[in-house]
Amino acid sequence: MSSAYFLFTIDAECPHSWARAGTIQTPHGTICTPIFMPVGTQATVKSVSPEELRAAGVQIILANTYHLMLRPGSELIASLGGLHSFMHWDGPILTDSGGFQVFSLGHLRKLSEEGAAFKSHLDGSAHLLTPESVMHIEAELGADIILPLDICAAYPCSPSEAKEAMERTHRWAERALETKKCYRPEQTLFGIVQGAFEPELREQSANFMGNLPFPGLSIGGLSVGEPKQMMWDILHYTTPALPRNKARHLLGVGSPEDLVIGVGLGMDMFDCALPTRVARHGGLFTPDGRVNIKSARFRTERGPVQEGCDCYTCQNYSAAYVHHLARTEEQLYYRLGSMHNIRFMLRLASQLREAIIAGSYPAFRDEFMARYIPASEAVREVQREKWQATRRN
Amino acid sequence: MSSAYFLFTIDAECPHSWARAGTIQTPHGTICTPIFMPVGTQATVKSVSPEELRAAGVQIILANTYHLMLRPGSELIASLGGLHSFMHWDGPILTDSGGFQVFSLGHLRKLSEEGAAFKSHLDGSAHLLTPESVMHIEAELGADIILPLDICAAYPCSPSEAKEAMERTHRWAERALETKKCYRPEQTLFGIVQGAFEPELREQSANFMGNLPFPGLSIGGLSVGEPKQMMWDILHYTTPALPRNKARHLLGVGSPEDLVIGVGLGMDMFDCALPTRVARHGGLFTPDGRVNIKSARFRTERGPVQEGCDCYTCQNYSAAYVHHLARTEEQLYYRLGSMHNIRFMLRLASQLREAIIAGSYPAFRDEFMARYIPASEAVREVQREKWQATRRN
Repeated sequence: MSSAYFLFTIDAECPHSWARAGTIQTPHGTICTPIFMPVGTQATVKSVSPEELRAAGVQIILANTYHLMLRPGSELIASLGGLHSFMHWDGPILTDSGGFQVFSLGHLRKLSEEGAAFKSHLDGSAHLLTPESVMHIEAELGADIILPLDICAAYPCSPSEAKEAMERTHRWAERALETKKCYRPEQTLFGIVQGAFEPELREQSANFMGNLPFPGLSIGGLSVGEPKQMMWDILHYTTPALPRNKARHLLGVGSPEDLVIGVGLGMDMFDCALPTRVARHGGLFTPDGRVNIKSARFRTERGPVQEGCDCYTCQNYSAAYVHHLARTEEQLYYRLGSMHNIRFMLRLASQLREAIIAGSYPAFRDEFMARYIPASEAVREVQREKWQATRRN
Repeated sequence: MSSAYFLFTIDAECPHSWARAGTIQTPHGTICTPIFMPVGTQATVKSVSPEELRAAGVQIILANTYHLMLRPGSELIASLGGLHSFMHWDGPILTDSGGFQVFSLGHLRKLSEEGAAFKSHLDGSAHLLTPESVMHIEAELGADIILPLDICAAYPCSPSEAKEAMERTHRWAERALETKKCYRPEQTLFGIVQGAFEPELREQSANFMGNLPFPGLSIGGLSVGEPKQMMWDILHYTTPALPRNKARHLLGVGSPEDLVIGVGLGMDMFDCALPTRVARHGGLFTPDGRVNIKSARFRTERGPVQEGCDCYTCQNYSAAYVHHLARTEEQLYYRLGSMHNIRFMLRLASQLREAIIAGSYPAFRDEFMARYIPASEAVREVQREKWQATRRN
């Protein structure tokens, strides 16, 4: 799907799953999918510099509208040349709508058809987010891809709550599209599919959003506390209803296993704070699963955290040193741990892309999962049903 | 003063002060003096990578024996190839003796002629540091320049306490020299001059240490709570008694102004955690004094923290962004702030060197001080007496 400022093309499709490899062109550069987007909540991917992100293979990052509108303010960022210039990152950026953060505020927010009124978690000041004001704020931030205000239903919720949230999300999407026309054409607005954990609603939402003139669609409302199997089930119902030619973003997901499975279920873009957050707590990814670098077994380990890893950390430091920094809570640890996990996610995305192009995605997925999350073959057989998708579209 | 592994040569001397520019050769590279050494207490200069230190002009760093012997342990560091390899820094390293930290433990330590018994601040475990054991530990750490166990008298202290601490420091220096013969010849042991704030003791200690076969001397026991003028007074008594041909290290000092004044009082090497510590709290150095980047006046500042500064931070980010990161307590702030102050100190050291070689050190000093710490001309006149040294050696 294309505009003068956004072009998504499919480079290859897996014949045995819904996985596809694609290319997205944006004003700040090209993105090869599947892709993982690190999260830079406050206009910084915690502890890591833009040059280091680039070196780790990062192609696009996500920043949070809610945090930035409150501090330092979108107007200030606009006056300083926008988010790219402000944070010294000249690659593509995606901003979310702030909706998810506002709805997480609980009693501090109040929803109406107009929008979401809330009190800042920082100073209690009152704010109102509407589909229209979000377009204004995101125009000031200046990301390449922007999202409209949506409603993420709570988990669990009743079918009627799910329906209500979805229908309002649909109405807000239309308002956002209308408002967007008045703002910067070089920004591309994605739609957000909701529907909670109701298969019919998901299908309905995918159809509705798919028919609006969005060049890409984010799948929202998942990874909000439900079991992983349930997320995968919902994607089984959602993906077939999505237009093939629109980029698909699985919002707020995920872990290495989410990336591997999500790709097979037809997703192109992923974002999550998890890889950097778990790194800061000592959890580092390896092909054999997540390890805790603070564990005593690394105290004397002269090899890298992950043998053969091409990240800055593994190329330059022993696991014993990383362990020492983590145990002494040294700030350099947060950098080294975050850089390793970010590189792990980006390398994984690139390996998935290669496997899709080579036609070997299902084998890659099964080998990765068997090594990353060991399970008996019987369990694996059951899981595989969840991972495998019959081509329905 | 030279050995096969250490050579200090004087490149230029200021005709109007005791300032000199020199070159130190070590097994891990050459150092141009005057030099500032950032402190890497736990085998890391907090938040900054070795590559970034190098890019900021850092030539040698200091690491703390006390912290490293307790965690991860000097034996472990030795088994991993020594401190250089452990922390991925291939330039020169100086390790202190641990004495200062042990004496700061207060009631947790007990001094005797044998050494200093203490309980670890981490787990209460009992340890004994002796002049001999410190040589063993520092050999395991493997720094290029090492210091012997000394006693830093408290401030204030009685003349008899000062004398006792100094005399024991002298006896321990002789024991350290004797023991050092059994260890790695590529490491160079400096002597430590003590004497608290007693001019005759300082002169006596400088003479005593200067006559022992140390290729360099550290001036200890200063910047321990006394007024700055008192430290400068003490250097007036110490420096003339130091051999001209030995490198001089002002231990645990200092700030930008300490560097500028200390150089004129004959010091070649400086180390201090202050530049990185104040940076972490928002204090950034500029030629016009220290500013607090968290202050509201930087909120909309589109220029760099310091106009014309060649550090990574000033070259790539607006003061407004650095302000935002500092206010949101983002980890990237600690990096950007630390890198700015480190580069400021290293550039200042290099400017001092150039001024000494050009014969313009006194003018450089007066201009720097008038701008960095504004004072009336009357006050400045009085201060200048403290800064100026009549050549007595």
